[in-house]
Amino acid sequence: MAPAFEQVPEDTETQTETPHNTPHTVNNDGQVDYKSRVTVVGSGNWGSVAAKLIASNTLKLNSFHDEVRMWVFEETLQSGEKLTEVINRINENAKYLPGIKLGKNVIADPDLENADVHFVYGETGNYAVKDANMLVFVTPHQFMEGICKRLVGKVRQDAEAISLIKGMEVKMEGPCMISTLISEHLGINCSVLMGANIANEIAVEKFSEATVGYRDKREIAEQWVRLFSTPYFLVTPVQDVEGVELCGTLKNVVAIAAGFVDGLDMGNNTKAAIMRIGLREMIAFSKLLFSSVRDSTFFESCGVADVITTCLGGRNRKVAEAFAKNGGKRSFDELEAEMLQGQKLQGVSTAREVYEVLSHRGWLELFPLFATVHEICVGRLPPSAIVEHSEQKPKLSVF
Amino acid sequence: MAPAFEQVPEDTETQTETPHNTPHTVNNDGQVDYKSRVTVVGSGNWGSVAAKLIASNTLKLNSFHDEVRMWVFEETLQSGEKLTEVINRINENAKYLPGIKLGKNVIADPDLENADVHFVYGETGNYAVKDANMLVFVTPHQFMEGICKRLVGKVRQDAEAISLIKGMEVKMEGPCMISTLISEHLGINCSVLMGANIANEIAVEKFSEATVGYRDKREIAEQWVRLFSTPYFLVTPVQDVEGVELCGTLKNVVAIAAGFVDGLDMGNNTKAAIMRIGLREMIAFSKLLFSSVRDSTFFESCGVADVITTCLGGRNRKVAEAFAKNGGKRSFDELEAEMLQGQKLQGVSTAREVYEVLSHRGWLELFPLFATVHEICVGRLPPSAIVEHSEQKPKLSVF
Repeated sequence: MAPAFEQVPEDTETQTETPHNTPHTVNNDGQVDYKSRVTVVGSGNWGSVAAKLIASNTLKLNSFHDEVRMWVFEETLQSGEKLTEVINRINENAKYLPGIKLGKNVIADPDLENADVHFVYGETGNYAVKDANMLVFVTPHQFMEGICKRLVGKVRQDAEAISLIKGMEVKMEGPCMISTLISEHLGINCSVLMGANIANEIAVEKFSEATVGYRDKREIAEQWVRLFSTPYFLVTPVQDVEGVELCGTLKNVVAIAAGFVDGLDMGNNTKAAIMRIGLREMIAFSKLLFSSVRDSTFFESCGVADVITTCLGGRNRKVAEAFAKNGGKRSFDELEAEMLQGQKLQGVSTAREVYEVLSHRGWLELFPLFATVHEICVGRLPPSAIVEHSEQKPKLSVF
Repeated sequence: MAPAFEQVPEDTETQTETPHNTPHTVNNDGQVDYKSRVTVVGSGNWGSVAAKLIASNTLKLNSFHDEVRMWVFEETLQSGEKLTEVINRINENAKYLPGIKLGKNVIADPDLENADVHFVYGETGNYAVKDANMLVFVTPHQFMEGICKRLVGKVRQDAEAISLIKGMEVKMEGPCMISTLISEHLGINCSVLMGANIANEIAVEKFSEATVGYRDKREIAEQWVRLFSTPYFLVTPVQDVEGVELCGTLKNVVAIAAGFVDGLDMGNNTKAAIMRIGLREMIAFSKLLFSSVRDSTFFESCGVADVITTCLGGRNRKVAEAFAKNGGKRSFDELEAEMLQGQKLQGVSTAREVYEVLSHRGWLELFPLFATVHEICVGRLPPSAIVEHSEQKPKLSVF
């Protein structure tokens, strides 16, 4: 019997470089520079790991300049030193990814767009996003609107962006994905990268997968795949920006639900059921918002795998477990401050944003799990409601 | 914005009984008996829980006789008593599900088909499958062919069967699913029930879901749904026997892979990646064998949820973890005997059966994870190969 469906041909392009498809610069001496420059906007835990992955590849690939510039929100450490100075001296992000060498070609830069910070590394008048053909955004999502506003008119108009940020902005006119926010403010194309990516595990080079979601240009997706892929980090492109981005965003709401189940000591069947119901609500919600979203995206790393890793080990799960163990008597803000050493939960705010969308559109009854997570987070329902409300028959046919 | 796809209408049928669609019997006094009789063939851990679920429903539903007969492979306990006698006296399966009341209407019966065992409960000449309209098969899969042979000519020809059994028989002419084995030997229709169902958790009434796979008759599927559903056990029917059954079978191979990852201490990203790759190979393998298999089946409880619960807590995962921790130096047989108190692993034998199919059809390269699990189990590759071999690019497009 012959296979009933398509075999994928060997990908001969993976390490082939296509400089003519990428934006390029004319140098001061009049020569065309076909090499791309990469800047990472953000330097937290995941941003630092992303810089490490990228920096290992720019050294190897001829189509990229070696240097990877990383914009760092400047902080003064307890030692009195600036965070950027420490990163550039010891080649580690001592605060958010201690013990991991980023690569000597990662240059920390406190000046995002040459506003009010005097730049000390490199030529005067330079700043982090200047000359970058490829911009990697990886900050907490609540800072992105402000960052976008600061960057208007400061980035190359032929630059390509990619967002690693989870979350969305909910406005009067409806939800706005971060990739859309970037595209609309800066007038540039924006892809996304999401996946089962607990940063500290990738930092120590344990095998992971990720998904690049792109809009239409396959060659741009392949450029991002080359920039991020390593033998231990396998990246697959899919033509579904919204699907990939919504996976990364909504999985944190499912992780909160899974954490409640853990805190209630309900066992693995119940946890698996809640994760599955959550995944179905992710699919239904994504398809209702964007009819272009593909079912197959949810079988990629950004879908089912990220739901699994986030519900097994992530910080949303952990704090939600503590919340349920305390019977909802201690708030998420209090537990977050106590348990996360300054890192922020995305799931609680995403649950609120999703709830606003559901409420505004009259969809609350169609998404009992998403709605219930928010109601529990704000104290209107007890943690045990997560199971009781999920026992209802689904009201939406997803497929 | 209106929902872009179908809302499911409220199911008004769930508790409606449709006796005229079910097989019926003419009594000795000439009256038609519209009530169905249920027999459970098998009485291990899962079989006992299934009997408990069913027995709680036959008491409530008018279309069923109260009594649920459960065929027990007779054993003599350490006390000297027969297992069936103990079950019928204390209403618990003291060996395989101690501490859980099955319901007084569960009657243990050592006589499957009136062959050579003298029957002691009920009228002379009776036996477990006699008069049953609904037969529930739940035994270890390696016993099923023998049981089917014993039952030829002994079951009602209008009976409906359902299989809760994981595994397949691989023969010269190709793989044979257990539901097909039952249908072909007994000449009756056979549905399946699979899902994220660790038996001991359902026994203590923690919330779970399950999936009934049926061939064509929706009203039969609804009959099975009514028979198994409880407030804490939510059953959904899908018209895809092969898809549902292959999920239940193949997930044990994925659980072996996940156990190797745990034993190697690779972390959650890697485990999630291996589970995802395993799920994709499940889909690809099922669709290659049966073109009727639906993608959506893998989002049901039998698919992604069962993969999750089995990879988190099941016995295949547990023994595979020990195997990897020992660097493959102690065999699965040895570890199984030591760790499982007489329960049997399905994953290792299913991996061998799948490997035979792949090898016979020239598909080994298309399924690196499935192939590697078997090669590790038999000692041809070290446990670490599970990650190295999964890092390859997928060679099959699943969708």
